[in-house]
Amino acid sequence: MATATSSVADVCRAAKRAARALAQLDTAVKDAALEAIADALDARMEEVLDANERDMRLARDAGIGDALLDRLRLDEPRVRAIATAVRQIVALADPVGEVLDGHRLPNGLDIRRVRVPLGVVAVVYEARPNVTIDAAALCLKSGNAILLRGSSLAMHSNATLAQIASEAAVASGLPDGCVSLVAGGGHEELAELATQTDSVDLIIPRGGESLKAALQKVATVPVIYAASGNCHVYVDASADLDQAEAIVINAKTQRPGVCNAAETLLVHRDCAAEFMPRILRALGAEGVLVRADERTRALGGDGEGGSPGAVVEVAGEEDWATEYLAPTLAIAVVHSVEEAIEHIARYGSGHSEAIVTSDTGAARAFQLSVDAACVYVNASTRFTDGGEFGMGAEIGNSTQKLHARGPIGMRELCTFKYLVEGDGHVRV
Amino acid sequence: MATATSSVADVCRAAKRAARALAQLDTAVKDAALEAIADALDARMEEVLDANERDMRLARDAGIGDALLDRLRLDEPRVRAIATAVRQIVALADPVGEVLDGHRLPNGLDIRRVRVPLGVVAVVYEARPNVTIDAAALCLKSGNAILLRGSSLAMHSNATLAQIASEAAVASGLPDGCVSLVAGGGHEELAELATQTDSVDLIIPRGGESLKAALQKVATVPVIYAASGNCHVYVDASADLDQAEAIVINAKTQRPGVCNAAETLLVHRDCAAEFMPRILRALGAEGVLVRADERTRALGGDGEGGSPGAVVEVAGEEDWATEYLAPTLAIAVVHSVEEAIEHIARYGSGHSEAIVTSDTGAARAFQLSVDAACVYVNASTRFTDGGEFGMGAEIGNSTQKLHARGPIGMRELCTFKYLVEGDGHVRV
Repeated sequence: MATATSSVADVCRAAKRAARALAQLDTAVKDAALEAIADALDARMEEVLDANERDMRLARDAGIGDALLDRLRLDEPRVRAIATAVRQIVALADPVGEVLDGHRLPNGLDIRRVRVPLGVVAVVYEARPNVTIDAAALCLKSGNAILLRGSSLAMHSNATLAQIASEAAVASGLPDGCVSLVAGGGHEELAELATQTDSVDLIIPRGGESLKAALQKVATVPVIYAASGNCHVYVDASADLDQAEAIVINAKTQRPGVCNAAETLLVHRDCAAEFMPRILRALGAEGVLVRADERTRALGGDGEGGSPGAVVEVAGEEDWATEYLAPTLAIAVVHSVEEAIEHIARYGSGHSEAIVTSDTGAARAFQLSVDAACVYVNASTRFTDGGEFGMGAEIGNSTQKLHARGPIGMRELCTFKYLVEGDGHVRV
Repeated sequence: MATATSSVADVCRAAKRAARALAQLDTAVKDAALEAIADALDARMEEVLDANERDMRLARDAGIGDALLDRLRLDEPRVRAIATAVRQIVALADPVGEVLDGHRLPNGLDIRRVRVPLGVVAVVYEARPNVTIDAAALCLKSGNAILLRGSSLAMHSNATLAQIASEAAVASGLPDGCVSLVAGGGHEELAELATQTDSVDLIIPRGGESLKAALQKVATVPVIYAASGNCHVYVDASADLDQAEAIVINAKTQRPGVCNAAETLLVHRDCAAEFMPRILRALGAEGVLVRADERTRALGGDGEGGSPGAVVEVAGEEDWATEYLAPTLAIAVVHSVEEAIEHIARYGSGHSEAIVTSDTGAARAFQLSVDAACVYVNASTRFTDGGEFGMGAEIGNSTQKLHARGPIGMRELCTFKYLVEGDGHVRV
């Protein structure tokens, strides 16, 4: 593993050399390395917990808040869960070498398009130390070298985890430099990393808007940005209202702080009189604050009928564009599936959008017209996740349209090349 | 079509509106529009030729060189060829709606990944007016709105061609704004276009390094850059030397000014004594200047044996990295397929690389290890082309690894979305 004294450029060049060797490795060799990493995490548990305790102590002394402390904290069950996640990646199919398509040209040339690793993938992330291992395992299995640049808050944890992964991988026959930590938490190191176009093929930021803004200013290496998730559930006139209630409550409340949680509920006016009071009751029971348009408030939005309901505030224009990441839900009544589609086109962030309907025409219109990574019919937006989609631990979630859209799994860590075979073919 | 008085942002917003409608159109409607464009080109031939004559006159007055004048020039056969190219795109399969993959999750959710248009594609190009129609046809067939920003040299030709395409498309039922010319040839307009992230999904530059540099400085919209093609032919020890000669001559001389032409020949030392004199004779007969390493020159590189051969100069380090785009070829002798692979890894630009060999082991090593968009066995590098690959007229050629690699055809003008169907599924 690169030492702290190596320059960023040196670490990147070593990763590039490692990537050339990694791209050629058989699945069995990569899987054995992942098993070794998982075993080493179990075997070197004390080292990991000691390093994490150092980070936790410094973080507490620095007055870091409880939510962030919890994300930073490792304990034995959490480390075992990280090891288990690595073993789950062993069980996934190797994307490298898959023939995506191919055909014989009229002149007899045979063309195949074959999946190959990207090369060197840099992951820039915040306080969660588990990302160190999750990302390394996904990159190694897909034949990529990985550069890790974590938060300085987690520096001891990340250094220990990266060292364990690197040592176990190299001992299993993977090349030196296959897992490297980029030392230095400053913006200068980030800028240096983000401009190594000769050696780094992709940067994946896992962090907030400030990290994205910092990268956008300096990066010449390709970056896959994950925009926020302003996700909608639209309850159509024909919806099964039991399903609708379950989906809305799940999409909003199961984990409100994540990008695939719903932020706005749209309800067709033909079912609004029946649905609105019950969903407001259910949301109220879950402690959800509602910010509603006038049509919604006219339909029992103020807890009328004596039933205990959610607290309902008046929604302003800004509510339709807000990703609350909190137990707050904007609600609007719409007059048609077309109006719902228009609302989503205007305010959605292209992440995950759901319709609840029993009408095939409405379902089809919604699926065809809504421009988002994931479009759901009669299911919660919360399923947008690499693990849920059967892609293994995801390394991020893309709301951009190029290369990767939706969960970024091993397939998205690959590119392809055309292999063309002839017997002396020349172009005429 | 947008008038010259619309601002760049207005034109982009109109294209965005058009894109939403285009994404929903059936193939038959799009094909009818393409047929109408092809027919209109034939029917409005005089208009096109008159506009082009205006550009030609201004260009001649400005002292533009013959090569550029020839690229700018349209005549009746060339316009008919443009119309024919549009009809060939009609014959290609519509990429939109293709199910890329899909499966049922253990919880019963059905997931499909379906190809959809990107939305709004901007093509920024230089003097060739045929690009106006080629690019418009590829974008419309793949359900995208197109923004065209051509060279000011071709402004009259491009304006007429874009107007013909737009009018024919709209008359066939395609939405207003589906084909627009971005007025203004200055860097300010380019910068404005390149920052319309709300409405433009992709910019494809078709031009030289200065255009790329200008975009790199300002673009926040995703850009697919095409790097230069420093392509190699490696003649292995076991090569059929007749095939090798034909492939080298084709790759170097069939059209030396294009990116898929070969720039360096690598010859295995075990066949160099036999192959070098004959390939130097053949290159000499084609008027190719050779810049050779010492090993090559020792093998008859100075026309020894009295045979007329190519003019051979001493290659310097810079020759291995040079894309001549001219009848010049660098030649080096290597000791193994591994040395050839190393040379290509060091100097290649990831475009097109070829091995000539009868040894399956060498062919496999070369295919696996060479990191390029197209890797050829016993065929000329000149085949890297959307048309040759059966993808229709290409809109560019990508040497980057993300999203598009190799020829950019209609498939590369698309993204995908996940369609997920359940019956009330919520995440537990």
